[in-house]
Order: sequence, then structure tokens, then C-alpha cells
Amino acid sequence: MTNLKNDRFLRALLGETVDTTPVWMMRQAGRYLPEYRATRAQAGDFLSLCKNTDFACEVTLQPLRRYALDAAILFSDILTIPDALGLGLYFETGEGPKFKKTIRTAQDVAALPKLNAKSDLDYVMNAVTAIRSALGGAVPLIGFSGSPWTLATYMIEGGSSKDFRFTKQMMYAEPEVLHALLSHLADSVIDYLNAQIEAGAQAIQIFDSWGGALAHREYQAFSLNYMQKIIAGLKREHEGRKIPIIMFTKGGGQWLEPMIATGADALGLDWATSLADARQTVQGRVALQGNLDPATLYGSASTIETAVKAMLDDAYRHGEKTGYVANLGHGITQWVDPERAKIFVDTVHDYSAKYLG
Amino acid sequence: MTNLKNDRFLRALLGETVDTTPVWMMRQAGRYLPEYRATRAQAGDFLSLCKNTDFACEVTLQPLRRYALDAAILFSDILTIPDALGLGLYFETGEGPKFKKTIRTAQDVAALPKLNAKSDLDYVMNAVTAIRSALGGAVPLIGFSGSPWTLATYMIEGGSSKDFRFTKQMMYAEPEVLHALLSHLADSVIDYLNAQIEAGAQAIQIFDSWGGALAHREYQAFSLNYMQKIIAGLKREHEGRKIPIIMFTKGGGQWLEPMIATGADALGLDWATSLADARQTVQGRVALQGNLDPATLYGSASTIETAVKAMLDDAYRHGEKTGYVANLGHGITQWVDPERAKIFVDTVHDYSAKYLG
Repeated sequence: MTNLKNDRFLRALLGETVDTTPVWMMRQAGRYLPEYRATRAQAGDFLSLCKNTDFACEVTLQPLRRYALDAAILFSDILTIPDALGLGLYFETGEGPKFKKTIRTAQDVAALPKLNAKSDLDYVMNAVTAIRSALGGAVPLIGFSGSPWTLATYMIEGGSSKDFRFTKQMMYAEPEVLHALLSHLADSVIDYLNAQIEAGAQAIQIFDSWGGALAHREYQAFSLNYMQKIIAGLKREHEGRKIPIIMFTKGGGQWLEPMIATGADALGLDWATSLADARQTVQGRVALQGNLDPATLYGSASTIETAVKAMLDDAYRHGEKTGYVANLGHGITQWVDPERAKIFVDTVHDYSAKYLG
Repeated sequence: MTNLKNDRFLRALLGETVDTTPVWMMRQAGRYLPEYRATRAQAGDFLSLCKNTDFACEVTLQPLRRYALDAAILFSDILTIPDALGLGLYFETGEGPKFKKTIRTAQDVAALPKLNAKSDLDYVMNAVTAIRSALGGAVPLIGFSGSPWTLATYMIEGGSSKDFRFTKQMMYAEPEVLHALLSHLADSVIDYLNAQIEAGAQAIQIFDSWGGALAHREYQAFSLNYMQKIIAGLKREHEGRKIPIIMFTKGGGQWLEPMIATGADALGLDWATSLADARQTVQGRVALQGNLDPATLYGSASTIETAVKAMLDDAYRHGEKTGYVANLGHGITQWVDPERAKIFVDTVHDYSAKYLG
């Protein structure tokens, strides 16, 4: 089970040499794929897709059948934890995720149950086990969680938000309530991710999707410190291999230095950051992952090739030989033609031989 | 008319010494003020408020009656230009701005009329003249425009957007169409801002509200280059005084170096950027403006004071004596208690004496 046929994704994250640049795509199992839409129609709705082991396993594997991807990522939602804590996650068409219950007061926070991920989120662990078995060692499986800050915004707002009104009111007016919530969530995420690792996840990504909404000092206090706590609490080795941890704060390109201090193995970058500059900043202390604007895939084959080559030139400009995983800077959108995603993946492998071959 | 009683805002933007830190607030004339809501109710709707000289003048002056602000800013909307180009701006309650017509093809772009700001947007120029007269030289008046990129996103999407789907499809699939649109808008903005300067605007801010949605290379090609063209085309002196230009790209904290190259006098920063780091980067080559998270004003008096002091400590950490204008990092929200905004303004003046007095 621990013998991987293709381990270049794990190797690159850990700074070990690779023959070509590993690549995967955030949201690679998603609506842009007709086979995904078909399985989702079978499942009925998005949450049923997540909660059914066979369906979750099937959609996780779909993009691997089409593309030469170097990693699979567990198909699930970032809001499984708040759902398991009793908030009642549901999806309204075109409106994104919503919660029946919100968390707005110290009493709300105090009343949150302690998560037992193995039982409360057994459907996630079942999916991890099933996917690992189905993969048969072809590529590693990434487990993931939302960051405490990102989960908290949804729990406080009751869904997505543009301005994070209630979350920021709590942050500036009652910071101790928000800290209590974040602390509870950090413990929950540790339990959740360790359960994923034990079930078979071979790398972990923490999605801090809304970290970029914070001011620079508040990012450290309300998001980064809790991710650091999580990293310190995770099982870092399993089945005789290190479990690399990727931290991805969307909009966090100005904060690489404090991010490195958390002990993460790799940092995800969005497209606002110059990969060449980021490589100079981190100086090999962590690996980097990213960062093509997913909208690039709306362009022609030659537009995509040119953009991917420029990204790889940035990644290896200073003679680096590893420490880089190609990816989009955020999730692939539903409007991308699947053939264009193939150009992205193949160009990464073909062109990176120039630097690594 | 050119004698200003308080010119510290202009002086700080131009790097001249000041006795205390000048301060204003983005969206200082806005819904958080009960007197604004009253005038708006009188006007009927938001566009009537913008288009009526007396009402626009009245709401511009309202925050100056409450707070010791060092600048007034023309009350208007950033979407006046597309409206004047025939797109039919309207507002749906709670939904933000919308256009009846969108721009999606080369034909749509070619059919756009040439703007004659003095006649097509005479209501803006009338407001500028009336406000200048009403101010009586108390403080300078800021004129403004949206950036070509930001205006283009609204024109292409037909309103606000989360993912800029159609704009980015045009950018990556038909970049020449987008460049034609941006070029037309840059010419329009030059005409519009020069008309504001001639009517009496004493400083200019270009709002690149959505520049941060761009990848780093595309920011240069599709937003910054057009702002640079505008800056080169603006009347930089009027009534015997220099007209300082402030460029504000929300989410642009990683791109200060190329921004400086545009010839802007000052750069606006949002709260994601450390002001201390930004001061080190720009080394006095441009002034900086910003950058308190507007949500800080949800906090207590002491929370606000502490945050303002930390911001000023950052601004003057390296012995600087000018080149800084205090502001929020984005517009003040409708949920702020007006008394809290007063604490922000007064703390800036009081505490900065420590460095400048």
C-alpha cells in the first residue's frame, strides 16, 4: 500500500529531486467535467455526492483518467466540520453554501460540541480509504481541510460573504469570542486531518480561502496562529513516509515570511504573486505550489502553453531543481473546456524537462 | 480661490513637510451618516443624488461638518463614464450597480461613442464647481475616476462580479478586443479627469478597485499600462498648483514597484499591506495613503486608537516626516457608528504630532 508508482508530488513538496514538475489542479474533480456532472446528477445533490463513498471515490478518480495528474485530492467540501458540529449545511442553487444555524455569540461558541472526526465524519474517512484502495498506488492522495479562520467566516456569516460584516464585527468588538471559536475549530481540524492521515491521506492541504480578507496583523493573530497550531498537532509521518503539509492562503502573497515560520512544507500561491519573486523570498525553505490564473484556460492552446512556460521559467529561474508543484492559483472554473486543462497538464510535464530532465 | 486654509493633504502627497498627518476616509460621504441617508431619501435614489448639483454638494460637505477632515472628495459614482457612453446605469436594491447594455464583442467596442466629458458629464463638472465654491478654500477637493480595467469589468459583466468570467474570457481569448476597450476608456478617463481639474478638482484619485483580480503580468498589461497612459495625459498643474495623482489598486500591495514607474504621486494601500514594509519599498519616491481595515471602526474607542497608533508608528518608523496620508484601506461601511469615525480622524491628528510636531 505504501509503494507509490509516482511519488514526484511528495518528493517536490519535500525538496527531493524530481524528473519532471508534478502537477494537479485545485477542484480538478468538478463541474467542468461532463462525467462529473453525470455522477452528480445520479447522486441528486452536492452533499449526497460528498457523503456517498462510491460517488466520492468515482469523482475523485475521474480527472486522473483524463489527465496525467501527479496527485489525487479527496472529493469533499471544506464545510464538513461545521456541518458535523450541527450547523446544518445546505446548498441553494447559484447561491453557494449556507448554514441553518449561525455562530454569533460566546454562548453559541460554548455550545459547540467537541468533534470526533472518526465517527462524526466517518463518510470522509470511508471515502479516503476507498480512494486509496482504488488508486492502487498510482499517485498520492491529498487530504484537506478549511482553515479555522475560513470555517469561522462561514459559520458566523451563515454562508459566503463579500464583506465579512459579522465576522469582522466579532473580531474587532469581541476578539475573545472569535478566538474561542477559532481555538475550537483548530482542535477540530487537527482531529479531522489526523483521522484522514490514518485513513490514508498522504499529503495535506489547508485551504485558507478567506485569509486574504484580513489586515496584515490580524492575519497573523486570527488565521496564521491557528494554522500553526494545527501543523504542530498533525501526525507528520505515516506508513513510513513523511506527510507534507501545504498551506494555501488565497490573497496571502505578502505574508510568505510569517507563513514559513509555521512549519508548513509548502505554500500555495495565487496568481497575484510572481512565482520568481516568491522563490527568491523563500530561498528553498519551503516548496511552492501554484499559480496560474484558472481563467488562462479560457484562452487558446498557444495562450495556455505560453503562460505555463512563463510560470515554469519563473519557478526554475534561479537554478532550482525541485521544491515546486505546478497548479492553478485557485479552483478550475466550470466554464473551462476539459481539452484546455489537458494542455495545461501536458505542457507542465513536457516543458519542465528543460530544467529537470 | 486658490488660497487654501488647510493644504496639508496636498503637501503630504507631494512630499512637502506637514504639521500633522492629513486624513480623509474613502466613501466619507456615505450611508453610515444619518444626514446622508436623509438627503438621499430626499433625492429619491442614488443616481438622482449624484446628478443633482445641490444634493451632490450637500452630501460632499456633510462629513466635513462632523470631522476635522483634511480633504473633501467629489460625491459621485465610479460608473458615470460607462453611463455616459450609453450603457444605462441603474441600481437594484441590495444588488449593486447594473448596466442595461453590456460590452462583449469587437463590434460593441467599436460602437462606443467618443466621450465629451464637459457636456456628457456636465452634472459632474457642475458639482465640482459648486463644491469648490462652497468649500471656500477650507480644504482641497479630490476628483476621481475608476480605472479603465475596473470600468471595463462592469461594462463586460453588466454589473459587479465575483469571478469576472466574461472579462477574463475576453482577456485570455480575445485580448485585442479588451485592449481596444481599455484604450477607449483610458482616453475617456483622461478627458473626464482633465475636465474635473479645470472645474476645480485639486487632486485626483484613480480607483482601480478590481485590479487585484488580475494575475501579476496581466495587471501590468491590462490595468497599470492604461493608468500610466492616463497619468501622462493629465493636466498636472492648475491655478498655479501641482495636481497630485493618487493611484489605488485594491489588492495591489505586491506591485508597488511597477506602480511607482507610472509617475503617480501617491499610492493607496489596502489593509493587507504592512505600511512599514511599503514605506521601506518606496523609499520616499511616492507618498502612501491608507490603510486601516474599515472594519476596525466596529471596535471600541480603545481598539480604534490602538490600531491608528500602530498605523502611524508604521508610517513614520524610519524617521519619515511627510509623504503619508491617513485613510482607511477601502470605503467606510454603512454599519459604522459615526462617533467611531471621529475617533479615527482625531487620533490621526493627535498622535501624529509625536512624529511631526
